[in-house]
Order: sequence, then C-alpha cells, then structure tokens
Amino acid sequence: MDDRALLASVRAVIGDRDLGDDCAVIHLGDRCLVLTTDMLHATTDFPEDMTDWQRGWMAAAVTLSDIASMGAEPLALLMAAGLDDPGRLEAITRGASDCCLRHGGRLVGGDIDRHDELTLVSTALGEVEPELLVLRSGARPGDLVCVTGTPGRAMAGLDEWKGHRLALLEPQPRVREGRTLARAGASAMMDLSDGLALSLYDLTRVNRCGFRLRPSLPRPAGVPEPWATEYALYGGGDFELIFCISADRFPVEGVKATVIGEVTGEEGTVLFDGALVERRGYEHRWEG
Amino acid sequence: MDDRALLASVRAVIGDRDLGDDCAVIHLGDRCLVLTTDMLHATTDFPEDMTDWQRGWMAAAVTLSDIASMGAEPLALLMAAGLDDPGRLEAITRGASDCCLRHGGRLVGGDIDRHDELTLVSTALGEVEPELLVLRSGARPGDLVCVTGTPGRAMAGLDEWKGHRLALLEPQPRVREGRTLARAGASAMMDLSDGLALSLYDLTRVNRCGFRLRPSLPRPAGVPEPWATEYALYGGGDFELIFCISADRFPVEGVKATVIGEVTGEEGTVLFDGALVERRGYEHRWEG
Repeated sequence: MDDRALLASVRAVIGDRDLGDDCAVIHLGDRCLVLTTDMLHATTDFPEDMTDWQRGWMAAAVTLSDIASMGAEPLALLMAAGLDDPGRLEAITRGASDCCLRHGGRLVGGDIDRHDELTLVSTALGEVEPELLVLRSGARPGDLVCVTGTPGRAMAGLDEWKGHRLALLEPQPRVREGRTLARAGASAMMDLSDGLALSLYDLTRVNRCGFRLRPSLPRPAGVPEPWATEYALYGGGDFELIFCISADRFPVEGVKATVIGEVTGEEGTVLFDGALVERRGYEHRWEG
Repeated sequence: MDDRALLASVRAVIGDRDLGDDCAVIHLGDRCLVLTTDMLHATTDFPEDMTDWQRGWMAAAVTLSDIASMGAEPLALLMAAGLDDPGRLEAITRGASDCCLRHGGRLVGGDIDRHDELTLVSTALGEVEPELLVLRSGARPGDLVCVTGTPGRAMAGLDEWKGHRLALLEPQPRVREGRTLARAGASAMMDLSDGLALSLYDLTRVNRCGFRLRPSLPRPAGVPEPWATEYALYGGGDFELIFCISADRFPVEGVKATVIGEVTGEEGTVLFDGALVERRGYEHRWEG
C-alpha cells in the first residue's frame, strides 16, 4: 500500500473534495484561506549532515511551497517539534523563522514535545484572492506544462553529485513565482515534492488529460545519463512548481521557468521520448 | 529544564508576543483568526487502552480546546499522522472528524508519514470577532476565577478511580462555553490542560495579579482525600476552561461553571486554604 492508496481510506471519512490539492481551501466571506501541514522526521526526511538550522528551514519550506502552489501569500507558520534533545530547538526555530523572513509568513507559535526521533510538523496558513486561487485541476489540452528550476536536483544532491547539495538541504519555496503565475493565469499548479512523474500522474487524476514531455526536459547539470533523466523524472524533494498555462500567456515576466511539454487529450497518459513514463517517485511504502 | 524554560529560548527568536496565549492571533483586515497546533504521541499522551477512534478524537479535542479558550469558533482542522501501522488511520481520522462534527470546525486535510511511534499532530484554525477575543491577560483584582467542569477528573481517570475514565479518554472541548463566555465579557481565559495550579501561575505571568482559591474547590467525585485535592490542583489532561470575570457578570446563562476563587493584587501568589499552592502540574521534563 502506498500513500495514495491510504488516502482513499481517509476520503471515505472526510470526503473527496478536501484532498485533491496541496492545501485545504477555506472560504471566509469574500476571503480565501489555504491551510496545509507536513510531517518530517529524522529517519526519512533529513540527511544526516544537515544542520538543525537547515532542518528548521526545510520544515518551513515544505509547507510554504504548498502555499505557493495555490497562488497564495503565506500569513503564518506554526511548528510542532518532537525533540530528542531540547538543545536543538533554538537552531531549528531560527531556521524556520529565517525561511519565513525570506519567503513570507511569520513563525507565530507551535508546540514542543519529547520524542525519541526528531519530528518536525509545520503548518502554514495563507491567503489568496478568490479569483487568483490555482488548483491542481484546470489544465486544458493544448496548454503548456512548465516547471520552475530543474527537477531532480534534490535527488542528485542526495546522491552527492557536485553542485546540487544545497538544493536538497535548503529548498527555496517558490512563493513569489506562485503569486506571479496565479496573476498570469496559470490553469493548474502543484509543487514537485514527490517528483515530476508522480506529480504529472496526480494531475491526470483531477484533469481529463495526459502529458507529452519534450526531449529537452531540463536535467541536473553535470550529472551523466542515465542518472540525469532518472533524477529529473523520478527524484523527489524538489520544491519547485509545476504548472499548466495557455501558450499565449507564456513566458511570464519575472518567473524563470522552462516549458517541458504539452497537455494532451490522452487521459491518464504521460509520455516522454515516445514511451510511457513510469508511475513512481517519492512515496512512503507501507508493509503489507 | 521544563517546557516553560525551553520556550524562553524560542522567545529569543520569534519574539514574546506570540507565545503568551493558547493560540496565535492573526489579524486579517477586520477579521481575527486564531491558530494552534499540538503534538501527541503514544508513550506520553495516549493511555494504552484507548481506541484509535479515541486517539483521533483526543488529538482534535486538544486543539479545539485552545480555540475555545480564545472565545473563537473553530473553522478547520488538519491532522498530521505518523503511523506505525497504516491500518490505524481510518479509525483515527473518524475520531478526529467526529470531534469536529460535535464541537465545531471541519477536518479538511493533513499529512501521513511512517513513524515507529504513533504521533498525531493536529492544527486548528478558528475565527473570533475582534471585540470578543479573550486572552490570558486581562484579569483584574476583584474578578472571580471560575472553571467549567471539575478539575482533576482526567488524572483521577488515569489512576482508575471509578467514573472518570471517559473524562480522560474523550475530553470535550468547551467550544460553546468559550463563545458564550467571550460574549459575556470574561476578562481572561485559558484551558486547563496542564492542571489548575500551573494554569493559575501562567495567568500570574501575564497579569499583575495573584489568586486565592476557595475551600469549596470542586474535586473529582468519589475520590477520597488527599487524592481528590491533589488531582484538582495538580492533575493535567482536563480540557476545561479557566476564566476570570467580574462578579456582576456571573453566573453566565448557558454555561455550567463554578467559582473557585478570586483574583487578588498579590502578584505571583496562588493561595489555597491559606497556604501557597505549589508550582507543579503536567509538564514534560527534559534531562540536563
């Protein structure tokens, strides 16, 4: 069973409409709030050579990235920290706070607890003008599909290819880009945290579409084949944005992004170089 | 070092004003939002005989209780679940969702992760009319100090005194009472989760006041002395509200509450039966 299968059991309880996007959407009068939470912990999310400042930064970045993918502006961040050693709290807090200072929102509180395994759960609240809200759904055949940055760099960094380590350890949530893309009329958006392939298949679930990727797909610099393509398609941990947009609205001023392909009418199909892309990437696996 | 000492190191990073209350307060135009997160995990927060439904219920109740203590209405709840066994997710989710159905808000999303130790982190978002926001500060000498319910029942339940087990396993966040007390003009409010004594000392930190408790302090029924008083003063895990209110506004229609004492001008002093109440209750202890 993988995360996506497990979520099906949650849908039975809380309903389908709340689980499709990177954030939950809460309408409040004429305002629109977005809310998201992410749990990170030592054994699966934090490379051992990270500093605690970087762990705090990353914990903030992953939820700010979710806020960005809805076209929203971060308002506030909470951090719940399960600590094996209370001496780690200050550097972790400073990392999270610095990520907010750089990308938006403000660390306004949290919770602390004793835990055998360092566990950080950050929650971000954002706001977006209702007419600018961007969901995963909304892609239309003929739209371009684009990414900010280069997919696969975090995974290349994990495997210690030169020049990519910081992409893994200090991901930059694309808040400014998300806002600009929302104003420019992006039709669908999400972040790349589980890898490009899984993100594209996630998009096919909520859009009646498929994708055809171009051979020019950007790949991590300095990494030879076949690793470069492997990382670009299947590597997780990149907090870049993937978005669809009609061709007449691209490029978007102020956003560095690359066209990686087109939205097609072939439902559920993701093609690269004429072949079907595998449905795999970063997922927790559960035994049984 | 205890939690309160540890929080001092966080204040150095994020500033003092965000850490005084049960929730962070976010002003959004003429609206006022409150946001809170709590981490619970198997070894320290969940009695072994709890059902997973109850674990989910409790995880929701603790943050809804924080929302209640600000006089706010819950809007939304997120749950991040670190699971030792994915099969537990459905019952946990149902418990959290049922707590929202009963007391307010809606479970709108979350995150799932593999974890050796079951860890549930819930985050609640609420809204309150700015003029109804109740903080921990605001108590005035001469105010009554009151509680909903009976303090110490959760601890009595933990020690298996008859009739109190459900108070421990299925705490009821006092959302309706919190709203009513805010409208009635409560001057200060918080929840009792760390026990009555620590809550009162927390109130003396942000108010230039002390407290004198009456001998009639309510205690868990059917529990002999000295345990009954011990639980009432020092037992944690009760998600009841403690509030201060001027005598001419009490009782408040629709709220079952008991006057337990008065706010005094003796700063930092909590007296019961003529003696100083100890500064102890439910706190995580950290080694070193």
